[in-house]
Amino acid sequence: MRYADAGVRLDLADAVTERITTRLGSALFGGMVPVPRLRDFRDPVLISSMDGIGTKVRLAARLGACGGLGQDIVHHCVNDIAVHGATPLFFLDYLAFHSLMPEIIDEVVEGIAGACEALGIAFAGGETAEMPGVYAHGAFDVAGAIVGVAERDGIVDGSGMQVGDTLLGLPSSGLHTNGYSLVQRVFSDNEYRTYDLLLGAPLGAVLLTPHRCYLPEIRALLDGGAVRGFAHITGGGIAGNLARIVPDGLVADVSLPSPVPPIYRLLHARGVPWDEMHAVFNMGIGLIAVCDPAVGVPDGWIALGSVRRAVHGTRKVMIHDRD
Amino acid sequence: MRYADAGVRLDLADAVTERITTRLGSALFGGMVPVPRLRDFRDPVLISSMDGIGTKVRLAARLGACGGLGQDIVHHCVNDIAVHGATPLFFLDYLAFHSLMPEIIDEVVEGIAGACEALGIAFAGGETAEMPGVYAHGAFDVAGAIVGVAERDGIVDGSGMQVGDTLLGLPSSGLHTNGYSLVQRVFSDNEYRTYDLLLGAPLGAVLLTPHRCYLPEIRALLDGGAVRGFAHITGGGIAGNLARIVPDGLVADVSLPSPVPPIYRLLHARGVPWDEMHAVFNMGIGLIAVCDPAVGVPDGWIALGSVRRAVHGTRKVMIHDRD
Repeated sequence: MRYADAGVRLDLADAVTERITTRLGSALFGGMVPVPRLRDFRDPVLISSMDGIGTKVRLAARLGACGGLGQDIVHHCVNDIAVHGATPLFFLDYLAFHSLMPEIIDEVVEGIAGACEALGIAFAGGETAEMPGVYAHGAFDVAGAIVGVAERDGIVDGSGMQVGDTLLGLPSSGLHTNGYSLVQRVFSDNEYRTYDLLLGAPLGAVLLTPHRCYLPEIRALLDGGAVRGFAHITGGGIAGNLARIVPDGLVADVSLPSPVPPIYRLLHARGVPWDEMHAVFNMGIGLIAVCDPAVGVPDGWIALGSVRRAVHGTRKVMIHDRD
Repeated sequence: MRYADAGVRLDLADAVTERITTRLGSALFGGMVPVPRLRDFRDPVLISSMDGIGTKVRLAARLGACGGLGQDIVHHCVNDIAVHGATPLFFLDYLAFHSLMPEIIDEVVEGIAGACEALGIAFAGGETAEMPGVYAHGAFDVAGAIVGVAERDGIVDGSGMQVGDTLLGLPSSGLHTNGYSLVQRVFSDNEYRTYDLLLGAPLGAVLLTPHRCYLPEIRALLDGGAVRGFAHITGGGIAGNLARIVPDGLVADVSLPSPVPPIYRLLHARGVPWDEMHAVFNMGIGLIAVCDPAVGVPDGWIALGSVRRAVHGTRKVMIHDRD
């Protein structure tokens, strides 16, 4: 009885590790990141996040198009800490498979390395695991961890928010990495490759558009004026994510641009009620900033409304859409 | 069509997140870790690692005994950076399920929080995902990321190793987190709960013994003398892991204590050849240190041999066992 009889191929694992290692800054197990920038901080706080990209991996595998998954995981993680005002330092990945698929590993790792390089983040390594019996046949998962740094008094968390602050939004590039289990219940396999008139592209291509990175826009806004807080719109939608940074006694009054992008109208037309749409998807807005009104509406941002005083019993986020 | 129809239960996910959040230091998405200790470092290097615990999760699920998995993932990660001389700062977890299993989440998160607390590491959060179709029915995965800090000139990586250095080992607490796919091919379901005379315990209990943490012993050895390097014995066994820190031109000559612990003798008796055993399992030694001979053999450590000059063509690690 050998390891290979149990579905684990050590020689393949070694070959994969070697290929991945050539993309890393360090050949050691522990990713080492010198942090000269830390010395520029008076009172540094490390800010980190771990995340996955959910069942978007299943759709990508089904369509044989895994090239965007690297950007998905890196950008998702970067956004999650950038909203607190952090500068990302390094990223680690976790890839796990029913059976190692070297081509997919190459594609995902290339994507991760490219996304990290574009953002000036060190790709510090990670783990690739072969776990027959845990993953379904032909399935795999992609997760990542990001670590960044912020000045303690530069952390933004919504705490300075007040009545009259404005809500600014940035468009999402699509569903990003949320709601893909629902999406794959709504659509059937033969629909993904077909050109869709409403979408102006094949459905599969629209759904696999990589998660947008908001780091440059967040840095620019922080440099330019009084920002109270940011919300990265992920699972839970606009209301679920924005509510986390709205202090008690205030309400964020959001008016969504109309109409919402075609993919959301298509999902609704295929039977997902609007309330469920709002609870699951970003509805075309991937990031919301709450700012002093003096910030105005910088290029690329969308005015979404403002903060008002809460009336007893009101939820922290009210969403008005005109669809 | 709602999210619940796709096998994803947002309300359950919220409840789970809330329960986990009570175990974390911060209620924010991005785990925030103030690092006052960083200011004590002249030239700090952040050292990180991401890892999983492999198909040990499948065995734990099968036996309904997930209480050790938290220690498994934390200790595995801590050991992986401690071997470079790092002091661990914080830990992030990734739990992913076919269907969320709240009792298992509680058990694993309790274990993680307890292991972090015992080592003075911040548990900075993580992600819990429900991914029907990616994971097999009833299956789940546990991964983790650790971040630590070291003084740049305090990093140990084997580079000072020389002829005559001694090899010291620490016993493993069992298989730790490697080789579990093979183990589950060797044994059948009805064997795990039976008391085994050779093992002196039920097989399942021996196999689920948590991964030992070597941080205290590593710190003590580093404080006490000239250490050239450490090898955490994980996938690839003693030869695979020790070879990584042996410079060209040297050979680590390892004599394993005899006999190897009962679990390894049992696996061999059940048909795993010795060469495969050595390539997959730690063979009872979970950590190896390479030191100046003046360090001697401190309490708890086992003398395993020494470093000698390589003859042309010799492998970097030679293992002598007397079984």
